Amino acid sequence: MKFTEYAKTYIPKINNAIGTILDKKLENINNAFLKTYYEELKSYLLAGGKRIRPLLCIAAYNAFTDKKDDSIITPSVGVEFLHNASLIHDDIIDKDNFRRGNPAFHYKFQMYHNNYILKKMNQTDFGNSIGIIGGDSTFFLGLEPFLFNNFDRNLNLEAIKYYEQAFADIANGVLIETDMVNRKNLQMNDYIEMVSLKTGALLEKSILIGANYAGIDDKYNRTLSTLGINLGIIFQITDDILGTFGDKEVTGKPTDGDIREGKYTCLLIEAMNSLDVKKRDYLVNLISKSRINDGDVEKVRELFIEADVINTCKKLATKYYQEAEDSLEKLTPVINDSEKEFFENLLKFVLEREF
Amino acid sequence: MKFTEYAKTYIPKINNAIGTILDKKLENINNAFLKTYYEELKSYLLAGGKRIRPLLCIAAYNAFTDKKDDSIITPSVGVEFLHNASLIHDDIIDKDNFRRGNPAFHYKFQMYHNNYILKKMNQTDFGNSIGIIGGDSTFFLGLEPFLFNNFDRNLNLEAIKYYEQAFADIANGVLIETDMVNRKNLQMNDYIEMVSLKTGALLEKSILIGANYAGIDDKYNRTLSTLGINLGIIFQITDDILGTFGDKEVTGKPTDGDIREGKYTCLLIEAMNSLDVKKRDYLVNLISKSRINDGDVEKVRELFIEADVINTCKKLATKYYQEAEDSLEKLTPVINDSEKEFFENLLKFVLEREF
Repeated sequence: MKFTEYAKTYIPKINNAIGTILDKKLENINNAFLKTYYEELKSYLLAGGKRIRPLLCIAAYNAFTDKKDDSIITPSVGVEFLHNASLIHDDIIDKDNFRRGNPAFHYKFQMYHNNYILKKMNQTDFGNSIGIIGGDSTFFLGLEPFLFNNFDRNLNLEAIKYYEQAFADIANGVLIETDMVNRKNLQMNDYIEMVSLKTGALLEKSILIGANYAGIDDKYNRTLSTLGINLGIIFQITDDILGTFGDKEVTGKPTDGDIREGKYTCLLIEAMNSLDVKKRDYLVNLISKSRINDGDVEKVRELFIEADVINTCKKLATKYYQEAEDSLEKLTPVINDSEKEFFENLLKFVLEREF
Repeated sequence: MKFTEYAKTYIPKINNAIGTILDKKLENINNAFLKTYYEELKSYLLAGGKRIRPLLCIAAYNAFTDKKDDSIITPSVGVEFLHNASLIHDDIIDKDNFRRGNPAFHYKFQMYHNNYILKKMNQTDFGNSIGIIGGDSTFFLGLEPFLFNNFDRNLNLEAIKYYEQAFADIANGVLIETDMVNRKNLQMNDYIEMVSLKTGALLEKSILIGANYAGIDDKYNRTLSTLGINLGIIFQITDDILGTFGDKEVTGKPTDGDIREGKYTCLLIEAMNSLDVKKRDYLVNLISKSRINDGDVEKVRELFIEADVINTCKKLATKYYQEAEDSLEKLTPVINDSEKEFFENLLKFVLEREF
């Protein structure tokens, strides 16, 4: 089944499972502020998103079983809570007040703060405080799908181990990225390590959790891991390319954000390692400026083009795509055709997307 | 066994179990910044603290079993991670840079930021960002004691349910307290609900987790809950009294902090509900000032004394103490003497402490 068909079939069920968890919380609440809080969490969690992580979990489960009884839907949403919890905290850290056109969770409470007559905190601090707790709540709510379902308790405990490991990996990826600003001689391997953790690990764990519930033999884990991690790497490389060289009209994102932030994208790392010393120093100088103007952005872009970074990074993505394809090929004898098609289709989409 | 003896016996073992979890993380890390991060977490978690929550867990386990084989030590530290994770996030929210004389976790990274040559974030934002992630990591690390131990998997899954519930309760307590500033006509019941969640719930869950591992019948849960929640209520009432009327030399804390913050302590709620309208309005005016000076603090203190709040609040604490004592009495036929003594001694200490 193609990725889009899979999404069409399962997204309503995924949203339903997410809503049920929040409704259960809301049922037992009398305090007006708590009611607002959990309603805002619910609306944040249901505001959209591609649900790629639960879909991977469901597809991995369905790949190894013929019991298509939807029992996997409940545990599949744990990883979506984890993803959203990270987004809530990331938006505070990055001071992003909007995400996909909607107010960020902490920003909703900055606005809510206007309702207060007595103000012990200022608006920003109030929003950030509720945002910190909101992310925490979402991390914990993500445990519920593994605690309350019809699966065997051993499988649930294994799933929680993956859940914990997924968080640790994401945190390590974010920490490594935060610290990169101060490192010298960054190599492409450092980038790959960082995105494997920051983006790849949760896709990997989504797949492993699904396969775990299907009760598969551990011997497939390494192959499944490659599939998930590489999916993350390909996604991130493509994201970096589109972030600077994409069509703003198609991606909906400005193409100067990464350069202005001085973000260590694969483009920047590749350029720093392939330009001659003089040009590299010039690039470093541009990126390190505290205020990067339009002219600087253009100069960085020219240096990127001169270093032929798009081609090199596309080749790199293709390498990881090929490795993922090989993993899928290895699994062909043991997985269902419909899910093989799903994974193939998704890999191709992630590699070739222009938005 | 008296509380202090219990503490002397078990605190070194508790610290050892906490250190082991961090050492396991540190073993597999090559990245220099991640190494610093986990070392700072380890030193934060081992910097002290009364370890009251793991001690309650251990005592509850030992109360119901004669297997004193120390197997409870590992799972007992989960609740201490949860407690510390909350502290890390609270200190960011409250902008407290120090805790018990040591730098707060986020503040350590504000100082670490001086090492950076390129600075994408300012010092405060950098410290807060690593602090947010640090709290998150600690919440997740607290799952490990339940995931990797020698107990039955069913018991571990039940313990994780308590762990999740404990977080939800604490968050609800903190949210209710944050919102109190804007509520009118607060009653003592609102205060009791708030502290039961914010402080009582984790003490309660520490006891329930210990009893769960001892494999006790559910029918004791309600009595054990009362014991834990009331311990939290008594602690918090006493804390409020000492926070305004304690001996600064003995408590080590200033006695004007709560008044200056306009904190809804039991003293303030009692005064607002027992003073006549005119004096109550005067009190509300004083507390609501954006800058409360020394004279205002003194006036609030006088109004508290006029309303006889210390006696009323002490009586309230004694009521909850008596209820906890009754619970303990009910358990006497089924728990060991040594642990009965521990709980009795702890209750008495929490009620009568002057520091």
